[in-house]
Amino acid sequence: MVEETPQSGEDRLIARYFRPLATHPGALGLSDDAATLTPPPGCDVVLKTDAVVGGVHFFADDPPELIAKKALRVNLSDLAAKGASPAGFLLSLVLPETVDANWLDAFARGLGEDAHAYGCPLMGGDTDRTSGPLTVAIAAFGTLPTGSMVRRGGARPGERVIVTGTIGDAALGLQLRRDPQATARWRLDPRQSAHLLERYLLPQPRNALALALRQHASAAMDVSDGLVGDLGKLCAVSGVRADIEVVRVPLSEAGRTAVAGEASLIETVLTGGDDYEVVATVAPAAMTALAAAAEAAGVALTEIGTVAEGRGAHFFDRAGNALLFKQPSFSHF
Amino acid sequence: MVEETPQSGEDRLIARYFRPLATHPGALGLSDDAATLTPPPGCDVVLKTDAVVGGVHFFADDPPELIAKKALRVNLSDLAAKGASPAGFLLSLVLPETVDANWLDAFARGLGEDAHAYGCPLMGGDTDRTSGPLTVAIAAFGTLPTGSMVRRGGARPGERVIVTGTIGDAALGLQLRRDPQATARWRLDPRQSAHLLERYLLPQPRNALALALRQHASAAMDVSDGLVGDLGKLCAVSGVRADIEVVRVPLSEAGRTAVAGEASLIETVLTGGDDYEVVATVAPAAMTALAAAAEAAGVALTEIGTVAEGRGAHFFDRAGNALLFKQPSFSHF
Repeated sequence: MVEETPQSGEDRLIARYFRPLATHPGALGLSDDAATLTPPPGCDVVLKTDAVVGGVHFFADDPPELIAKKALRVNLSDLAAKGASPAGFLLSLVLPETVDANWLDAFARGLGEDAHAYGCPLMGGDTDRTSGPLTVAIAAFGTLPTGSMVRRGGARPGERVIVTGTIGDAALGLQLRRDPQATARWRLDPRQSAHLLERYLLPQPRNALALALRQHASAAMDVSDGLVGDLGKLCAVSGVRADIEVVRVPLSEAGRTAVAGEASLIETVLTGGDDYEVVATVAPAAMTALAAAAEAAGVALTEIGTVAEGRGAHFFDRAGNALLFKQPSFSHF
Repeated sequence: MVEETPQSGEDRLIARYFRPLATHPGALGLSDDAATLTPPPGCDVVLKTDAVVGGVHFFADDPPELIAKKALRVNLSDLAAKGASPAGFLLSLVLPETVDANWLDAFARGLGEDAHAYGCPLMGGDTDRTSGPLTVAIAAFGTLPTGSMVRRGGARPGERVIVTGTIGDAALGLQLRRDPQATARWRLDPRQSAHLLERYLLPQPRNALALALRQHASAAMDVSDGLVGDLGKLCAVSGVRADIEVVRVPLSEAGRTAVAGEASLIETVLTGGDDYEVVATVAPAAMTALAAAAEAAGVALTEIGTVAEGRGAHFFDRAGNALLFKQPSFSHF
């Protein structure tokens, strides 16, 4: 007689690495086929999915903790920009044969740290094998009062355009990763190089600003495919134009050094993507309150331009000349 | 002056193939970074994700319409077993270079047909490139009254065990796919072969039975990794044992023919998986009502055994001997 059905390898993998991350009561300790989320009364659930693929969004030999964190944070960044509080996430983990127990242990540890730090527990998931690169598809859920999601479409003429943090670091970090010689060409000191590389590896989603964006922004989105293209999308949905003074776009010290060393890098900065900052439009009367909330949250906030009637996102240099970009937005296709 | 930010290839792909599937108002026509779902008052959102990977869950040259449908249906099947009404889904589509416009067109058409048929619209998604096989990760959402999800853990001694449809067809279909000679060995006529192949390609999730399961089942799950292993999991979480008479497990005519031709195939039938049927436990007093609901829904329902005190899922032959299985459950690991 079979006294008990033995656990499969997949069951053991889930129990060992991922059950500790399933702290939400609706996840049922990953013991069921699905989870439940009960949004607070009067709330919507905000739904988002983004996948990261080895060789595309990260390098196969990146530390597994950081791959895990990036996979979650690119989704958290969208929840932040939409003004939603994180509620939980589902994980589809598609693993090549090369992944071993040490790798999984580190991956789960990194994921657990961020799930805890951002209050976004694992609700469920699926693990599969692939003959291709590691792929991590996360679907993240947030909640907010019904109808209060900050959309792309709310920008109005006369408003200001703001961004959080600094722009372009991750795109420069990716170039450095591919071409280590660039460190010397751009005259970066080791600390500056490390900063750019780190910004590529580990996004800093602005979830601390979510509530303030919901209260004070008329439109917002996260900058993932480059500021030029993303702001262009926001303008298109809102039916407005934006005029941006490039000199006001906030760059890190490392970013400024790189652009000073090689002026054409400003295109990489503005169009390269992977920033995971927020671009938003704000009515002039709401600027003070938003700035105060950002300061309280420890998030840098910079006004970079204005919204007007018209179409498109327009970027101007010091002399007032419009910049033209070869490819305004990162695209896989 | 740049008059408007040009659309990227990814934007065009989304607009052309996937926007028509985003019929839910909360999907905002895929024009935003996230979607909103407003569950009916007093309802939970049920969350599920399952990915399908080329070369693992389907063959790379399967018709794209059917790959799309399988990717959605494996998730719909879980919503059905949990008693939830489909509400929508997120799609992460990871595409190899070989995928072209014709492929995408057929994929989106198949996905759209099922989104419509099952009342489960596309809420959002993400498209990426990969150097590996096509991967489709779907996260599906359902709703049901708060606390009413049918869990694995509710089975009680004295109850009956039921399954929907027929068991083993897809696992036999997969064997046929890999070994076309088996058609002759198993003495299948062409119609029987076609039936098994079709059952592997296109699951038939039992969403028509979701409400009745919520009303009448004490525990349920979908059979995706094989009846033996899946029922074993249900028993483990419920803290009960199940005794199943193998002769009562419903087989299709093709399945019966194959097993008659090669008796050892009963192990494939019971442990091979990919069934996407429902196994559930039901109190004796609720059997009549559930059977009536199943008949009204056009879903075959068969009683296959009983729940008792103890542990494990036990399968007995006509002589009352317990069957032992080499691998009770499909596992990728």
